Amino acid sequence: MRISLLGERELIKKIAAVVGGVNDREAVGIGDDAALTRISAGYWLVTAKDMLVEGVHFLLPQTAPADLGYKSLAVNLSDLAAMGARPKNAFVALALHPETDSEFVLDFFRGMKELAMQFDVAISGGDLVQSPGPLAVSVTVQGEVLREKALLRSGGLPGDVLCTTGPWGASAAGLLLLRENYNCPEDVREAALQAHFRPRPRVEEALWLAKSGAVRAAIDLSDGPLKDILEIMDASGCGAQFFARQIPVHPAAVDVARLAGLEPLELALNGGEDYELLCAVPERIFDGLACEYAARFGTPLYPCGTLTEKKDLEMITGGGKREKISFTGYRHF
Amino acid sequence: MRISLLGERELIKKIAAVVGGVNDREAVGIGDDAALTRISAGYWLVTAKDMLVEGVHFLLPQTAPADLGYKSLAVNLSDLAAMGARPKNAFVALALHPETDSEFVLDFFRGMKELAMQFDVAISGGDLVQSPGPLAVSVTVQGEVLREKALLRSGGLPGDVLCTTGPWGASAAGLLLLRENYNCPEDVREAALQAHFRPRPRVEEALWLAKSGAVRAAIDLSDGPLKDILEIMDASGCGAQFFARQIPVHPAAVDVARLAGLEPLELALNGGEDYELLCAVPERIFDGLACEYAARFGTPLYPCGTLTEKKDLEMITGGGKREKISFTGYRHF
Repeated sequence: MRISLLGERELIKKIAAVVGGVNDREAVGIGDDAALTRISAGYWLVTAKDMLVEGVHFLLPQTAPADLGYKSLAVNLSDLAAMGARPKNAFVALALHPETDSEFVLDFFRGMKELAMQFDVAISGGDLVQSPGPLAVSVTVQGEVLREKALLRSGGLPGDVLCTTGPWGASAAGLLLLRENYNCPEDVREAALQAHFRPRPRVEEALWLAKSGAVRAAIDLSDGPLKDILEIMDASGCGAQFFARQIPVHPAAVDVARLAGLEPLELALNGGEDYELLCAVPERIFDGLACEYAARFGTPLYPCGTLTEKKDLEMITGGGKREKISFTGYRHF
Repeated sequence: MRISLLGERELIKKIAAVVGGVNDREAVGIGDDAALTRISAGYWLVTAKDMLVEGVHFLLPQTAPADLGYKSLAVNLSDLAAMGARPKNAFVALALHPETDSEFVLDFFRGMKELAMQFDVAISGGDLVQSPGPLAVSVTVQGEVLREKALLRSGGLPGDVLCTTGPWGASAAGLLLLRENYNCPEDVREAALQAHFRPRPRVEEALWLAKSGAVRAAIDLSDGPLKDILEIMDASGCGAQFFARQIPVHPAAVDVARLAGLEPLELALNGGEDYELLCAVPERIFDGLACEYAARFGTPLYPCGTLTEKKDLEMITGGGKREKISFTGYRHF
C-alpha cells in the first residue's frame, strides 16, 4: 500500500513491529518524543551519522530495499568500529516520496534489522518525512567506549606499520558490474555484489584491536584508501608509504578490473566502500598482534605500508621505486 | 564559492571554525570517524532525530539559511525538552546540491550556533553529502536526564489538567503570511514570522517542570495540538477535553486569522509548529505549580483542558456545549 494512503502512524506501528523493541526493559524506543537509553557506567558515548541519497550513493531499482537498509546501518557501524566502540542504538530518518510502497519501507527495515541483530544493536527511533525528491536515508548510530581505549585518527607515529582487516576493491568491482554489462563469471559477480551491497562492518575485530591497546591510529575505508589515508596523515602529522606488492587486492577486484581494462591495484586504491579498517601499529609489536589476530579471527591482519616523517604519500612499487601519488578517490562534491 | 569548487575538506574546516569545538577538553568533535562525548554519571541518554526537506518543511529562498539552521536545531531541542532532558550535543547531516554556495552552508551553521550557544549545546559532528534533489537537513540531538525524572507521553491520568507553556497559532500565522500577500500590520507580521522561523524551544522550562516531579505526561506541539494530544491520549490510555475559552490563542494568530477569513481558534488548534509543551498535571497540584512557574519564568502555565476516562477528544465550547472533534492537523504523508 502507498504510504500516503497508509498514513504515518500506521507505518510507524508496522516499522516498530519489524525492528522490535529496545534491549533494555527501562529504555524507551520508538513512540515518544525522543528515545531514552542507557550508557554503561564509566563509558563514553560515540556517535556517527552518515547520510545516503538515491542517485548519488545508491540507485533504484538496482538496489533492493533490504540491502539498502542493511548498508545504511553498516556504513555507520563501520564508523563506530573505526573508533573501537561497541554499537548500541541506531536512529533512522527517511525522506520518502508519498508514492512509496509501504513494503519498500518495511523491507528496508527488515534488512537493517538483520544486521542490527548480529551486533545486538537496537533500532530506537528516528523520523519519517515526505519529500518530492530522491530517497534520502540518514542514520545515526551510538555506541560506547572506554575513553582511553578509543581509536582516533591521530596518534600514528613515523615507522608505524599500516595494516588492514581485509582485501580491497571488491565493492568498487561490484559498482562496475552494476554500471556495465561485462561477461563476468557468476561467482565473481556474486562476491563483488555482496561486497557492494552488504559490506560487513568490522565491529568485533575493532573491539578486539581497541582492547589490545596496540593500535595508535585507525580509520575505516569508505572513500578509497588513497583518500582515507590522508585523514590519518593529517590527524597524526605524518606521511605514508604503501607497498604495491603488499596491497591486498580482492580476487573479485582483480577479475573485474581485467574485464574493465583497469589496473586491479588502481581499483583497490581508489575504489572506496570497502569498510575495512586501516590501522597504524608500532612496528615492534605488529608481528605478535597479527599472529594473535589471525588466530582469533581466522583472517590475516594485512600489512600494507608504513607511516613516515616526510609528509608525502608515496607508493613503493614492486621494483622498489618510489612514486609520489596524489589523490583520485571519491569526492562528495 | 560553490561547494563543488571548494571541496568537502575545506568546507568542513570552515564549518568547524563557525561551530567551534566541543565543550569538553577530552571530547572529540568534528574531524574523526565519530564523535566522542561524555554523559554525566547516573544519567540516561536522550536522543531525538528530526529531518527537514526543502519544499515540504521550508521554502527557499523565502527562508534565510541562518533561520533554517536555527530552526533545524530548535525542533530537535524541543523534542528533548518534551522529555525533560538537558541537551548536550547536536549532529547535522546535509544533502546539498553541488551548486550550493558555501556561504549558504556557513550561514546555516551560524544560525544554528546562535541557538546552540543559548543552551550550551555543542555541534559535534555529522555528514555532508551531495544530492541532485531538494536540500535535506537531518539533525540528531543528544541530551541527558535522570531516568526517574524523564517526561514521557504515557503516565497521564483522567482528571489531570492539560496545560501549555505558551500561546498557539503564531507559527501557522507566519506560514499564512508567507503564502498570501495580506495587508498585515508590521508588528503582527514580525511576531508571526519570528514564531515561524525562530521558535524558542522550552528547554529551561522543561528542565524545571521535570525537576518539579509534578508532570505526569508531556509532548511538544509540532503537528498541531489536535494531532499532538492524540499521542498523549494513546500513550496514557485516556481521552481529553479542550476548553475553547481557555485555549491561549496567540494575538498574531488572531489578527492573521481574521485577515485570512479563518477562525483564530481553528488556526491555533490545527496550525502546528508552536513548539510549546503540552503537559498533564494532577489537578490538586496544578494551581501551586502554575504559580511557582509564573514566578520563575514570568509567563503563565496556561491550563487549557483535562484528561478524561472516555477515550474521545472533545471541545467544550464557550456556552458549555460538548463537541466531538476529529483531527485535521498536519499529515506527514
